[in-house]
Amino acid sequence: MDKNPRITVVLAGWEEKTFMPQAVKDRLSSISDQIVYLDSLKFNDGAEVVEQLKKTEPEILISAWTMPKLTDDTLEQVPSLKYLCFFAGSIKGTVPDVLLEKGLIVTNWGHSVARTVAETGLMLAIGGLRRAGFWTLEMHTRGGWKDRTTVQTGSLFGRKVGLHGFGVISQELRRLLIPFGVPVMTYSPSVPDSLLEEQDVTRANDLEELFSENDVIIELAALTPKNTGIVTEELLRMIPEGGVFVNIGRGAVVDEEALARVAVDGKIQVALDVYGVEPLPADSPFRSIDSILTLPHLGGPTTDRRQDAALFGIDNIERYLAGESLQAQVTVEVNRRIT
Amino acid sequence: MDKNPRITVVLAGWEEKTFMPQAVKDRLSSISDQIVYLDSLKFNDGAEVVEQLKKTEPEILISAWTMPKLTDDTLEQVPSLKYLCFFAGSIKGTVPDVLLEKGLIVTNWGHSVARTVAETGLMLAIGGLRRAGFWTLEMHTRGGWKDRTTVQTGSLFGRKVGLHGFGVISQELRRLLIPFGVPVMTYSPSVPDSLLEEQDVTRANDLEELFSENDVIIELAALTPKNTGIVTEELLRMIPEGGVFVNIGRGAVVDEEALARVAVDGKIQVALDVYGVEPLPADSPFRSIDSILTLPHLGGPTTDRRQDAALFGIDNIERYLAGESLQAQVTVEVNRRIT
Repeated sequence: MDKNPRITVVLAGWEEKTFMPQAVKDRLSSISDQIVYLDSLKFNDGAEVVEQLKKTEPEILISAWTMPKLTDDTLEQVPSLKYLCFFAGSIKGTVPDVLLEKGLIVTNWGHSVARTVAETGLMLAIGGLRRAGFWTLEMHTRGGWKDRTTVQTGSLFGRKVGLHGFGVISQELRRLLIPFGVPVMTYSPSVPDSLLEEQDVTRANDLEELFSENDVIIELAALTPKNTGIVTEELLRMIPEGGVFVNIGRGAVVDEEALARVAVDGKIQVALDVYGVEPLPADSPFRSIDSILTLPHLGGPTTDRRQDAALFGIDNIERYLAGESLQAQVTVEVNRRIT
Repeated sequence: MDKNPRITVVLAGWEEKTFMPQAVKDRLSSISDQIVYLDSLKFNDGAEVVEQLKKTEPEILISAWTMPKLTDDTLEQVPSLKYLCFFAGSIKGTVPDVLLEKGLIVTNWGHSVARTVAETGLMLAIGGLRRAGFWTLEMHTRGGWKDRTTVQTGSLFGRKVGLHGFGVISQELRRLLIPFGVPVMTYSPSVPDSLLEEQDVTRANDLEELFSENDVIIELAALTPKNTGIVTEELLRMIPEGGVFVNIGRGAVVDEEALARVAVDGKIQVALDVYGVEPLPADSPFRSIDSILTLPHLGGPTTDRRQDAALFGIDNIERYLAGESLQAQVTVEVNRRIT
């Protein structure tokens, strides 16, 4: 194994600045002194990237959101290239399937961003119960103030929390909930009992149980064909009055037209970071319903924690160089499931 | 000690409903079968309350925000009255000082609401770092969406938290911060070292150290004459860029005009639940500055947790009847300090 590998980094200036503050660059430099940084925004397409890679001859390529999609013949053109260490999540816009099939090793940011998404979920759960979105609008656009005789605010203390899906984000969120002492239930057919026991989480037998038995529903199910639109109006109406529905997973898991209808009724609060169509259209009803708090997909990673994703990637580069198995490797099979 | 005391409850309908849901009433009924419920809104002033108390002859009086202020001669008029169990916080609008001096025992909600205020602080810290107030306004009033190349969002992970004041709310908040693994510092001259060690909190030697060494400042100092306006523009400008200033304590602790100036610069985010003047005036600059998230003093208790304050009060009634010392007793001395 080459211990001083040629590494080419293809990032936009704003990506380089946030994913790779100096300490992160120093860490990468400790692995190799053959690192070339290229500005991704100078390339019009993947063919231009490949032309450049023919000159830098990297074994390892680092990129994130902005690098154009590589061409199908990248490995033939750049035979030195073995490993794409992708600092971001979905590789669909970056790597043609055929490169995976031809043996290009690819990893993404894996679980390194889970904690910031979980943190968003906690904020939206508390903020939803408090109606923080409504009150922000009241305070900033309507000169409002509460009326103590009629105000309705809820606390997370004393509530029951239901997590739809129990992947790494749910597991981080479960950890953040510990000091609140709330019971946590999940619907996640694939998760083993041992993990639920270890994390003190009860299994819901179906979504009906999850939605009717908990006040705070946090949506984190993977977007698979089976899960598309699986959160129906019927389920949403099972959430007890005064409860909250939070989506920090994928918008298309939810019947969003139904969600808007349920939110208008105001029996539950809704707090959303993700939508079936993003950017959320300007005329989306979500933007004008008071009982819905909306954020523009800020879940994770936050700007200041993009470095976590880069450090996770650099860990993987070290594993790769040591011949160890990689974390968050995107295989052909995984890539088919990722959304 | 009378084991079946006469108890008179003077609450508005909306107070009775939220402080005393049926389970709480049942608990009180287990103490006495001589309980009279009166509607506080039927009384024009304290003299009318006292007239009624002459008929019900309570040993224990329960009230909250809406009961008119008792008259100075209440104890002479109602000699049976020994103990006012006040379900809310400040008794200034309810009890003339002279009644405390004459020996009326008074307790308030004590620390029973601390956890919901702490929860608000956590939400505002995360929400401030994320600019959730700004994004709520963008999404709901301006048809906005993030631009990934320029968006700036922060996480609580990796930050340092400074608590100004270390009373019961700060202690609850410190507990909620545990899963975030953030170092916590406090400036609170009166708190003993042993408590800080027990809770893994570092002491700041002065406010300059607190504000310059931490990214997230949470204001929880008591409003004493000494503390009024103690958070100056100079201190606010010491908070590192990208940090956040959260106030869930008392507005008047802060130089609010300076706070507005600092917020306009946008180097730090600001999240406020309390103000020097409440309701916050309609023309307050806080309402129109994008880097300020404002709530209308919703800290605590939330509507659904007012019952915690009532249960705390009923615990005190049991202590009183057992001749034990009371929690959160408001003495003449304490009353002078409370704000």
